[in-house]
Amino acid sequence: MQKLAVGIDIGGTNTVFGLVDKEGNCLVQDSIFTKQFDNFDDFVKVLAEKIKSLSKKLHFKFELIGAGVGAPNANYRDNSIEEASNLPWKGKLQLGDLLKRELNIPVYVTNDANAAAVAEMIFGGAIGMKHFMVLTLGTGLGSGIVIDGELLYGYSGFAGELGHVIVRPEGRHCGCGRLGCLETYVSATGIKRTVSKLFAKHHDKSELRNLPFNKMSARRLADAAYAGDKIALESFEFTGRILGLALANVVALNNPEVIFLSGGLAKAGDLILKPTQYHMDDNLLSVLKGKTKVELSKIQGNSGLLGAAALVWKVLE
Amino acid sequence: MQKLAVGIDIGGTNTVFGLVDKEGNCLVQDSIFTKQFDNFDDFVKVLAEKIKSLSKKLHFKFELIGAGVGAPNANYRDNSIEEASNLPWKGKLQLGDLLKRELNIPVYVTNDANAAAVAEMIFGGAIGMKHFMVLTLGTGLGSGIVIDGELLYGYSGFAGELGHVIVRPEGRHCGCGRLGCLETYVSATGIKRTVSKLFAKHHDKSELRNLPFNKMSARRLADAAYAGDKIALESFEFTGRILGLALANVVALNNPEVIFLSGGLAKAGDLILKPTQYHMDDNLLSVLKGKTKVELSKIQGNSGLLGAAALVWKVLE
Repeated sequence: MQKLAVGIDIGGTNTVFGLVDKEGNCLVQDSIFTKQFDNFDDFVKVLAEKIKSLSKKLHFKFELIGAGVGAPNANYRDNSIEEASNLPWKGKLQLGDLLKRELNIPVYVTNDANAAAVAEMIFGGAIGMKHFMVLTLGTGLGSGIVIDGELLYGYSGFAGELGHVIVRPEGRHCGCGRLGCLETYVSATGIKRTVSKLFAKHHDKSELRNLPFNKMSARRLADAAYAGDKIALESFEFTGRILGLALANVVALNNPEVIFLSGGLAKAGDLILKPTQYHMDDNLLSVLKGKTKVELSKIQGNSGLLGAAALVWKVLE
Repeated sequence: MQKLAVGIDIGGTNTVFGLVDKEGNCLVQDSIFTKQFDNFDDFVKVLAEKIKSLSKKLHFKFELIGAGVGAPNANYRDNSIEEASNLPWKGKLQLGDLLKRELNIPVYVTNDANAAAVAEMIFGGAIGMKHFMVLTLGTGLGSGIVIDGELLYGYSGFAGELGHVIVRPEGRHCGCGRLGCLETYVSATGIKRTVSKLFAKHHDKSELRNLPFNKMSARRLADAAYAGDKIALESFEFTGRILGLALANVVALNNPEVIFLSGGLAKAGDLILKPTQYHMDDNLLSVLKGKTKVELSKIQGNSGLLGAAALVWKVLE
C-alpha cells in the first residue's frame, strides 16, 4: 500500500497542509486561516478535521505514516511552539501531543528554516549531501544547518540563528532589539531598507521612487533591476556583499558543501546569487576558496509544506 | 594488561611525545628537536625509535593500542600533513603510513586545535558534553568544534577556522594575506599588537613601554595588568570585547554548551575570561543569553600531547 506523509506549514496568516509522497509530490492540499482561531485547541481540531477530509479526496488506498509541522518558534524537543509573536496564541502550545491525539499518527515539529533544510535534503538539491545549509530570505532571515546528515539543534536547541549574527555592531535596528543583525540587511525587508538608504544617498532617477516603502517587494525590486534601474541593481550588489562576507565566516567555521538560498528574495535569482558567491569567495581563506557553492533552492512548490512532510520521510530513512 | 596510547605533538621547534593512560596521565615523555631533520623519513624513524625506548622505561607490562598525532596543517582523512609552512619539510607528508609501518599500531592524525578539543572531551572539562568548542590562543587562534559528540571537519575537512573569520573588513593585516581576521586581534600576538596601538593612542605611563615588541608575551602583559597597568588592563578588555562579539555570532550559529579557552593567552585567566563572557552575552539574542559558558580549559599539562593521545582513546569509546 502506498505511504503518504502529512505536511503542515503554520504561518501567521494561513496554515497550509497537504499529503505528500516519498518523491515530494504534494497530491492534494488545502489551507485554513490561522488568525480566525482565538483558541489553540479549536485550531488543532479544525486542522485535524480538514486533514481527514483531504484524505478522502484521494481515490486509492494509502497509509498515513506521520505528520510533520513547520512553525515559527517551534521546539523540536517536545514538539511544542513557544511564545511565537506572530501567532494568535500565547504561551507554550503542546501542538505535537494535541495533533497526535486527533490524527493518531506520529507528529514531528520543527521551525520553518529547519523544515526547509530537510526539504532540500529529502526532495531537493541536497540529496546525499552531509554538510549544507539553507537560508530562507523572507520577512527575516532563517537558517537550517545540516552537519553530517543531521539537523543541527545545538545545546539548547536554538542553533541556526544566522539572521541574528551581528554584522555591523552599530548598524540597523533589528526587531530583536539589537543593532546590526544580518537580517536587517539580507532579507526581503532588509533590501527594501537598503533601497531607502540609496534613495537618500544617490541622485539617480528611479521608478522605485514612485513606490511607497510598504508596497515594495523583492519581486518589484528584481523587476526594476532586470529593467536596468541603477538603484535596484545597487541594492542587490550591496545585499550580496553583506551576505557574502557573512557566509565566508560561516564557511570558515562549519565548511559546508553548498549554501542554498530560498524564500522571496532568492526568487531574484542571479541578481542575489552572483554577488553573494563573488563576495563569499573573495573573503575566504585560500584553502577554502572555491569549494563551497551558493545555489538556489531546488525545491519546487510550497517548501514549507514539503519540508514539514520531509520531516516524516527523514525519520524513515 | 594495562593499555596505553602514544601521544605526539609535532611543533615547528620541538616534537613532544609520551605514553598516556585512559585517565589522561602522561606516565613518561620525551622530545626531539623538529628542526634538526632535513629529511622527513629520518624524522619519523628517529621518532619511532625514541618512542620504543620510552616504552622500555616503564617497569610493568602494558599494551600500546595506538598513536595519536597533533600537527599543523594535518589532514585527518588520510593521516597526512600538507604544506605546513612552519615545519621543515615541503609537500604532502604521509605521516600516518610511515609511522604505522615503524610502530605497527594504528595511527590517527589531526590538527592541534582539534586535538585540544578531543583532550577536553576525553580528559578535561567536556566529558559527556555533546556540543562545545575549544579555542587555542597562541601565536594564532585555532579552534576545534565538537557537534553531537564528534569533531566537526566539514565538507572539505577544514572546518573550525575561527581564527580566520573576518571581524573587521578593513582591519589588521593577517599572515594569511587578508585583512581583519580574528586572530590578528585575539591571540598572544594579537594582544601585543593591541598594546602597540594603545601606546600610540594613550599618554598613560606604562612599564610596558620599556619592553620591545618582540619581548612582550601574554604572560608579561598579564603580570602588568595584575599590577594595575592601565594599558595592559585595556588591552585585555579590548581583546575580550572583540572575542566576545565573535563568539556571540558563533553561538547564534552553532549553539555550543561551553567554549573553552586554552593556550598562552588563556593563562591570563579572568583578565581574558571575564570581558569575553560579558561581551558575548551582551551581543546574544535574548533566547540564547546566559546559556553558553566561556571557561578555561581543564587540561593540566601538555594539552597537545594529551589531545593527541586522546584521539586514540576516543576511537575506543
